[in-house]
Amino acid sequence: MELFYSKDIDGNMCRLDQDESGHCVKVLRHRSGDEIAVIDGRGTLCRCRITSDSPKGVEAVVLSSESGWGAHTYRLHMAVCPTKNNDRYEWFAEKACEIGVDEISPIIGEHSERRVFKTGRIEKILVSAAKQSLKAAVPQVNEPVSVREFIREQAGNEGALKLIAYCFEDENVPRRSVKEMLDGFEGEEIVVMIGPEGDFSKAEAELALEAGFVPVHLGASRLRTETAALTAVSAAYFRYI
Amino acid sequence: MELFYSKDIDGNMCRLDQDESGHCVKVLRHRSGDEIAVIDGRGTLCRCRITSDSPKGVEAVVLSSESGWGAHTYRLHMAVCPTKNNDRYEWFAEKACEIGVDEISPIIGEHSERRVFKTGRIEKILVSAAKQSLKAAVPQVNEPVSVREFIREQAGNEGALKLIAYCFEDENVPRRSVKEMLDGFEGEEIVVMIGPEGDFSKAEAELALEAGFVPVHLGASRLRTETAALTAVSAAYFRYI
Repeated sequence: MELFYSKDIDGNMCRLDQDESGHCVKVLRHRSGDEIAVIDGRGTLCRCRITSDSPKGVEAVVLSSESGWGAHTYRLHMAVCPTKNNDRYEWFAEKACEIGVDEISPIIGEHSERRVFKTGRIEKILVSAAKQSLKAAVPQVNEPVSVREFIREQAGNEGALKLIAYCFEDENVPRRSVKEMLDGFEGEEIVVMIGPEGDFSKAEAELALEAGFVPVHLGASRLRTETAALTAVSAAYFRYI
Repeated sequence: MELFYSKDIDGNMCRLDQDESGHCVKVLRHRSGDEIAVIDGRGTLCRCRITSDSPKGVEAVVLSSESGWGAHTYRLHMAVCPTKNNDRYEWFAEKACEIGVDEISPIIGEHSERRVFKTGRIEKILVSAAKQSLKAAVPQVNEPVSVREFIREQAGNEGALKLIAYCFEDENVPRRSVKEMLDGFEGEEIVVMIGPEGDFSKAEAELALEAGFVPVHLGASRLRTETAALTAVSAAYFRYI
């Protein structure tokens, strides 16, 4: 199913940007009168009829709207340290969107190797993935913040299940299994922190625990950052399957 | 942890091939007398001492062996249709190995777009992934066979949980949830078939059912072939976590 994406939908008119219009008219050869389906990135699918088929700015009238199109019943926020290799993070973003994610926060830890992050590129990948997987909501990707800043931001987030995955064991606060924590959670909002290759530091872990994060492990396998992140996404998906 | 890979280990001598030797001596600068750890690809980790540091053919004496190193308790065979884009299958193979998989069979379906498959390249990726994720067993990757041939091969495989994931619904044989099937399974051997972008055909599905495969869905999300495959790998992983 062919989908377009527009942030410019007001009530009953929809406008496609230059990229989307070019694709619509020059590649897919749509013309005025054709019906197209447009996602607004926030969960609504609009069925529209093209009124102006300019390859630089398609305009269409909205015939009908459907909210929560392709939505999942939970809200998942993945806070994942940028990977040394950008491809890997892009791969994670694409697959996380296919399976189900609502928000992605790149977090820079003490042991992070990569401190630069191409948010724009990830946004493009998420729009593509949302269209391909038939979801009208495009996951939000945030600008990078430090791990400490992220933890601070989440401190007041009371109703959510907040999990931090790291590889070391602290005998005072043994890690629970991510599956066990998800199975025991009755709510719908989940936040998961995934560290860099060098893991979170003890100080970062302590801060997280103080802010209400539960330390978890992701099973016995030793997973790369992006694999760990996607494994957590799958775990949440299966919790609500 | 640095690991080497060798298929040439007999009792107490180990030999590295040219690539591994070059890496060992020229890149990592090992010399005679150094201790190295070598996986045999079949589950055993051998701790060895280098006796000959030739960059074309390192030789080492085996000091000790540990079987089942990095092993998981179940046996998972993923039969996945080759993807149009090779990168995607390579990503799947790498991540499946990290999480846990024992055998990968590329299967060519009626609706498959790609009929050529680079087994050698996937083998290299699996060796790399096994080393990186600290597993002494390198998943086996088979030469491509047709879906029908694969189903025939599996017909006699009685004790295993055999699952086939497809997107259509047949009111006579409703699909079960992959999670439900895994949770209800007491054994340790699992075989999962994942179809191409165009899905398995009704005829292929029927043949699979006759051979004892249970039809499953992977939840509500619409997943690419490689994402569906990895989601099934994660589901098995969480079943035995």
